[in-house]
Amino acid sequence: MEDTKLLMITARDGFSPQVGRLVSMMNYARFTTLQMVEGLSVEELDFLLDDAGNTIGMLLAHMAAVERAYQILTFEKRDLNDDDEKEIGLPLFLGQKAREEIKGKELDYYLQKLEAVREKTLAGFKERDDDWLEEMTPFWEDLPANNYFKWFHVFEDEINHRGQIRWICKRLPNLEGKVSAEVSE
Amino acid sequence: MEDTKLLMITARDGFSPQVGRLVSMMNYARFTTLQMVEGLSVEELDFLLDDAGNTIGMLLAHMAAVERAYQILTFEKRDLNDDDEKEIGLPLFLGQKAREEIKGKELDYYLQKLEAVREKTLAGFKERDDDWLEEMTPFWEDLPANNYFKWFHVFEDEINHRGQIRWICKRLPNLEGKVSAEVSE
Repeated sequence: MEDTKLLMITARDGFSPQVGRLVSMMNYARFTTLQMVEGLSVEELDFLLDDAGNTIGMLLAHMAAVERAYQILTFEKRDLNDDDEKEIGLPLFLGQKAREEIKGKELDYYLQKLEAVREKTLAGFKERDDDWLEEMTPFWEDLPANNYFKWFHVFEDEINHRGQIRWICKRLPNLEGKVSAEVSE
Repeated sequence: MEDTKLLMITARDGFSPQVGRLVSMMNYARFTTLQMVEGLSVEELDFLLDDAGNTIGMLLAHMAAVERAYQILTFEKRDLNDDDEKEIGLPLFLGQKAREEIKGKELDYYLQKLEAVREKTLAGFKERDDDWLEEMTPFWEDLPANNYFKWFHVFEDEINHRGQIRWICKRLPNLEGKVSAEVSE
């Protein structure tokens, strides 16, 4: 834990006050994701617990794809087009085809994707402010959603899947004990 | 979705501005938890996917216990004592004993626990303000953590376990399709 502000949801240099808090939460969520997958092998990243599941690699690719999708929705203010779907559709929507194709990659492959997309997110946040967080559009079921919600959903989805990564990690062959405390499952 | 502010992370009547945003996130996390468990039977709540896992009932009880624990830490400004551990230790720390004892309850039992503890949280938040969110103490590994982080962690832990509840729901006997879209797993 090198970031001494890791456990602080607060203002951050370079960001407007509310955006700083959002960044704080996204940072912490990412920290726990990275902590969970540290040192995993290709075999572990590709481990499929059962036919209905996703691998850890798929879930990491999904996190990067979701973040890219919300850059498009909120920074570029448009829906995903065919080019976007070609670029991120597979990890975004997951499913059988993703199960067949997202495999055989080292951890670093996923980490680089996550880092590259996060870099663009933070650059985008620096150019925006608290008022932008309040901007809203009709969203799911046409309910109004502001940009704060949309980015909350990005890290909320990451945490949801991190919970599943923890679940898988506990059941990886030869990796018993990676999650030692049951409460932190 | 009756709450028209469901997808808005924003100010809320009766709460200071930052607290309102925190409440918005906690509300949405809870909405998705409740949506996921709606209509589950005792048998489904007690379903154990494998020996290493927790049941959905255990995870719901855990969510209520974590929230109570953070009321003690941040509202009462003290560590958990023996009485607290008697009251919430089992669902808080989970494990084998919890696996044996937290079972046989209707969904309503868990929902009432969640609602009762949430009511106290919201009452506590109403008496506090944005400055209180910034108050910090040494926390995990003695890093400084503010109250905003501690309450972020409450809903972050809920989302993490909701991810696992979704995982279990997909695998419940006779409940195939409860989570229809793979992406929302």
